[in-house]
Amino acid sequence: MTRIVVDAMGSDNNPTPDVLGAIDAAREYGVEIILTGDASRIQPLLDSNHAATLPIRVVHAPETLTMKDKGEDLVMKARHKEAQNSMAIGYDLVKKGEADAFVTAGNTGAAMVTALFRLGRIRGVDRPALAGPIPTAKGIVILLDLGANPDCKPENLAQFGIMGSVYSERVRGVKNPRVGLVSNGEEAGKGSELIKAAYPLLADSKLNFVGNIEGKELFGGHADVAVADGFTGNVLLKSSEAVAKLLVDKIRESIKGGGPLTLLGGALIRPAMGKVRRLLDPAEEGAAPLLGVNGLAFIGHGRSDAFAIKNSIRVAKEAAESKVLDAIKSAIEESLKK
Amino acid sequence: MTRIVVDAMGSDNNPTPDVLGAIDAAREYGVEIILTGDASRIQPLLDSNHAATLPIRVVHAPETLTMKDKGEDLVMKARHKEAQNSMAIGYDLVKKGEADAFVTAGNTGAAMVTALFRLGRIRGVDRPALAGPIPTAKGIVILLDLGANPDCKPENLAQFGIMGSVYSERVRGVKNPRVGLVSNGEEAGKGSELIKAAYPLLADSKLNFVGNIEGKELFGGHADVAVADGFTGNVLLKSSEAVAKLLVDKIRESIKGGGPLTLLGGALIRPAMGKVRRLLDPAEEGAAPLLGVNGLAFIGHGRSDAFAIKNSIRVAKEAAESKVLDAIKSAIEESLKK
Repeated sequence: MTRIVVDAMGSDNNPTPDVLGAIDAAREYGVEIILTGDASRIQPLLDSNHAATLPIRVVHAPETLTMKDKGEDLVMKARHKEAQNSMAIGYDLVKKGEADAFVTAGNTGAAMVTALFRLGRIRGVDRPALAGPIPTAKGIVILLDLGANPDCKPENLAQFGIMGSVYSERVRGVKNPRVGLVSNGEEAGKGSELIKAAYPLLADSKLNFVGNIEGKELFGGHADVAVADGFTGNVLLKSSEAVAKLLVDKIRESIKGGGPLTLLGGALIRPAMGKVRRLLDPAEEGAAPLLGVNGLAFIGHGRSDAFAIKNSIRVAKEAAESKVLDAIKSAIEESLKK
Repeated sequence: MTRIVVDAMGSDNNPTPDVLGAIDAAREYGVEIILTGDASRIQPLLDSNHAATLPIRVVHAPETLTMKDKGEDLVMKARHKEAQNSMAIGYDLVKKGEADAFVTAGNTGAAMVTALFRLGRIRGVDRPALAGPIPTAKGIVILLDLGANPDCKPENLAQFGIMGSVYSERVRGVKNPRVGLVSNGEEAGKGSELIKAAYPLLADSKLNFVGNIEGKELFGGHADVAVADGFTGNVLLKSSEAVAKLLVDKIRESIKGGGPLTLLGGALIRPAMGKVRRLLDPAEEGAAPLLGVNGLAFIGHGRSDAFAIKNSIRVAKEAAESKVLDAIKSAIEESLKK
């Protein structure tokens, strides 16, 4: 049975969504769950939700990393040998082979830094990248990096392409994934110095490289993997979320400000709008894998509810069972031979 | 009377939208229009639209720059002393003082390069920037650079802040405009090396600097001016447009795929949706000024229709009458004294 460690202290409303999502996942997906965190707060939730017969156990972690943990202080907590926080203890279980993947909805920076120190990097990978599933007109594109590396070298982007492609193929079942390079123009030769230097590395690789992509191609579903440095990827992700929210708010406002017929229309399209919301809701797709560390790590949004946590556990299970980590290691090894 | 040169050969469907937009602008705004382009195609449009009594004249330009013009070939055409294309002739009229501003919906790259060679840069400005009006929850933010400079230095971003702030104040009438720096995190200290180096330059300037902004703040209307390098600005702009399109398409699809009540609802909310579309439609806001060149240049979307051209002419007129060029020159001079 696949074993997933879940940081029970991750989400903004921890530990309730984290624990309830874990219970649902254990029921639905037949996974074994290890919850790390404050046992005195986790156990009552398990008890009151009749989880005694499920394959769930608690590993007590007396400390929790929060949004306040950053900078050198965070590095200290992340690397300390005897670290007692729920992330470090969770990653250590993966490192020791007692679990197959780690899932957290906690502070993204803390989760990345702690992963780096507890799991280490895959041999040959310079910079691990956070790879997020983004909804498009035709399904999902994996965008990486979402923010782990605000400054990148061309070689980093080429590795992001490799890791994203293997992930898309193994975990999402995409055959020969199309890899695009996010740029300010579709034509080859467009882009910043970074993009112009990364382009030939991707073009000369074994990847199914489709060239530069812009928003139109990315959200039109013309690529399965979109490569960007962490600054660009993060700005792209957050702007897209903000635009979607702006548009939905304006539509709602405009309907509310309309006459009775408009209001009636608004009520009638509610189910259709709900369907769109679900299509574009990242909670369906689970957390973002941190690719390039030597172990499976999934980092979800702080706003995650039990449904999002459950989906993150499902994706972590699929990743573990697909042996994506080994496949990434092989692909990186292969790319270094050239 | 303010005199605006309009590139009649700019838009994708030139010269019809360009000429009709100019006629409408001459009627509505009391501006004098000079149309540059193929006189044999422009004059019949003027004749058939009863424009004889309007203050519109045609300056024949036998050549047109198209999307095919790029690279060295474009530079040759842009700098050639006797250049006969509609952009070069238009900019030259501004340079010679025969017109107050130039408007084109042609190839953005060509329009920028030609502006650089015909108008030159403002003294002290290293990199001119394309400054676009972006709809937000509370009005408009001026985002610059939209793509003139894929690679920037911190000093360039600081100048973008100055130019954007003066433009926002003079042309859009915003008092003490709030200037934000687009980053992957709101906190000071977040960002790429470029952003971290630009931050103190903006913070120590006389600008009303509100710090780093993310998509949430940008589209939430928390800034009047958003500063980014041309790569980031372009990716942000195009992704936002693509997400908005994706969302609207998905809503339409979902309504069409619904039952009769949903379809009825869709029909009833059509006026409300139209209102949202107009709110978010950049055509209302006119073309984007290229700030930092020594003359007023406005570059619109190739898809511009007559309505968009008319609005671009209105904005160009407002810019000319606000003396924004002199104000930018003074502000740049001032910033160099420190």
